[in-house]
Amino acid sequence: MAVDQTTGKQSIEFQNAPHIISSASVVGPKEGEGPLGEWFDLVAPDAQLGEDTWEKAESTMQKEALQLAIGKAQLVTQQVRYLFGGDLLAQLIATSFGNGDAQIPLFGLYGACSTCGESLALASMTVAGGYADYAAALTSSHFGSAEKEFRFPMGYGNQRPLSATWTVTGSGAFVLAAKGGHVKITGVTPGKIVDMGVKDNMNMGACMAPAACDTIYQNFMDFNRQPGDYDKIITGDLGSVGHRILIDLLKEKGFDISEQHMDCGIEIYDAETQDTHAGGSGCGCAAVVLSAMILPKLRKGIWKRVLFVPTGALLSKVSFNEGQTIPGIAHAVVMEHC
Amino acid sequence: MAVDQTTGKQSIEFQNAPHIISSASVVGPKEGEGPLGEWFDLVAPDAQLGEDTWEKAESTMQKEALQLAIGKAQLVTQQVRYLFGGDLLAQLIATSFGNGDAQIPLFGLYGACSTCGESLALASMTVAGGYADYAAALTSSHFGSAEKEFRFPMGYGNQRPLSATWTVTGSGAFVLAAKGGHVKITGVTPGKIVDMGVKDNMNMGACMAPAACDTIYQNFMDFNRQPGDYDKIITGDLGSVGHRILIDLLKEKGFDISEQHMDCGIEIYDAETQDTHAGGSGCGCAAVVLSAMILPKLRKGIWKRVLFVPTGALLSKVSFNEGQTIPGIAHAVVMEHC
Repeated sequence: MAVDQTTGKQSIEFQNAPHIISSASVVGPKEGEGPLGEWFDLVAPDAQLGEDTWEKAESTMQKEALQLAIGKAQLVTQQVRYLFGGDLLAQLIATSFGNGDAQIPLFGLYGACSTCGESLALASMTVAGGYADYAAALTSSHFGSAEKEFRFPMGYGNQRPLSATWTVTGSGAFVLAAKGGHVKITGVTPGKIVDMGVKDNMNMGACMAPAACDTIYQNFMDFNRQPGDYDKIITGDLGSVGHRILIDLLKEKGFDISEQHMDCGIEIYDAETQDTHAGGSGCGCAAVVLSAMILPKLRKGIWKRVLFVPTGALLSKVSFNEGQTIPGIAHAVVMEHC
Repeated sequence: MAVDQTTGKQSIEFQNAPHIISSASVVGPKEGEGPLGEWFDLVAPDAQLGEDTWEKAESTMQKEALQLAIGKAQLVTQQVRYLFGGDLLAQLIATSFGNGDAQIPLFGLYGACSTCGESLALASMTVAGGYADYAAALTSSHFGSAEKEFRFPMGYGNQRPLSATWTVTGSGAFVLAAKGGHVKITGVTPGKIVDMGVKDNMNMGACMAPAACDTIYQNFMDFNRQPGDYDKIITGDLGSVGHRILIDLLKEKGFDISEQHMDCGIEIYDAETQDTHAGGSGCGCAAVVLSAMILPKLRKGIWKRVLFVPTGALLSKVSFNEGQTIPGIAHAVVMEHC
């Protein structure tokens, strides 16, 4: 777990790279109807999942995703030493109420939609540091609970501009261990807050693209790599607007990632037929696409090395209503076939 | 950093115990008028700190506390590799807006008022794991922003029952390194969610005491210790109601900690003259008391070994209004004079 302590660097390279030994994805019906539909482990027949509130539905998705991932790893819950979990809701209520039963010591995390990267970074540091035989990373989002938390009551039926994204109803869980499986995490680049002054909460891609650029550039510097050293560079939920901004910003810094770049938010929906505008978002978005699409390709060796970069827009309705900007953050995780 | 992987254990014992090499506390005027007033590094003359909102004031406290702690460690900001920060507000806006300028890679954390323990646990795991020469832990709370976030508009002037606590306006920052100073973190016991079904958001002590009991009991089991092995067992913000419940619950499990127990929420205010009812609370409470009162006593060797247990009540106004319970969580950190 060597760290180059040169000032300005911010990555960790694991000498004993932890492995992602299992994963699971649970999504809502809209995600099930999208292009990745057949690859999710569980597609709920409706977005309520049998609960009477969206928040409880989101908690239930987390619970199901975690149990599925633990089951796939052929473990029992008690063997998972620590859980790194988060969601988008105020005070992480999807996580708090979803994981009481599991009784795994919990580190609650918030990095907006970048939380999947944050949780994988901390879980991998924990396993590589010898602190746990097994650690789990778990995140979720829900269209209904997120609209209520950040925007307008759904009953208003307000019009969404084309730059807006659609919050993914879904939860992804990952179990990490020192060995097992065919995907390892060889490094992480935890991100800094990047604020370019964007204030439009209907254009999250523009808020987050500068942070994605900063973290990806830093990853290239710290590991002395070029875009071509990755088969794919996969952001979380920039959507079609943020995707174009990221390509442009990195070109200004001398790197062209247009061949390698992919975005989970663009992949998860068919924007034309599903009315999702710029794409999917939410801290469930990157998580379920990682589990359903990215990890299988890494497992099979179709992709050898991927830079996975969940992106987050840091706002609340209070900060937005007080006229604050929307800073971004992005945490990068290097995943390799093994 | 040995971990006993026996099922049921949840603590980490550091072989290379990281040190808390500096700390700082910034508080509001009410805290400055309390019994610990003279020990805080900076007492703001008013709770706005020159800002036009309470949220921005809280961000400013975080910024000041972090810079003070980094300065006391005789470091420049760029030397701090990772920052573990959090607050009580929805989507951690005090942390997001307080730390953009510092440009330290940030792990956003949420554990309600237990976040000070969570941040110290992760920062110490990071330093002991060799991932950073210097890591910082930072938390805050603010009476004005917390009342707005969780309870009633302040203008209502609603009556508070005697079981209610008063959210501390304050921020505490800590810099950790492999060596330096006279306090080391020799172990941590990250906590699980404990839900006894309490639903009263004006009685946080009752919500959190069972979680404190669970974590302290687990710490005794994992390290094979008795209450007398600690000079003090210091909870975050149980207040006078939670204090009595904790003593009773641990007695039922065979441990009497009445001699060792202390609570930051009880220490920070003079309940009789300051109208704070059950005591102080908030994730600034444990942090500023740790910096101003606990660490100095550990540094001087007045206390040799302390169990520091910040406690959190996991609710949001949404979960509360939807009739959910208020689960608790507590993260314990073992600190020793060296």
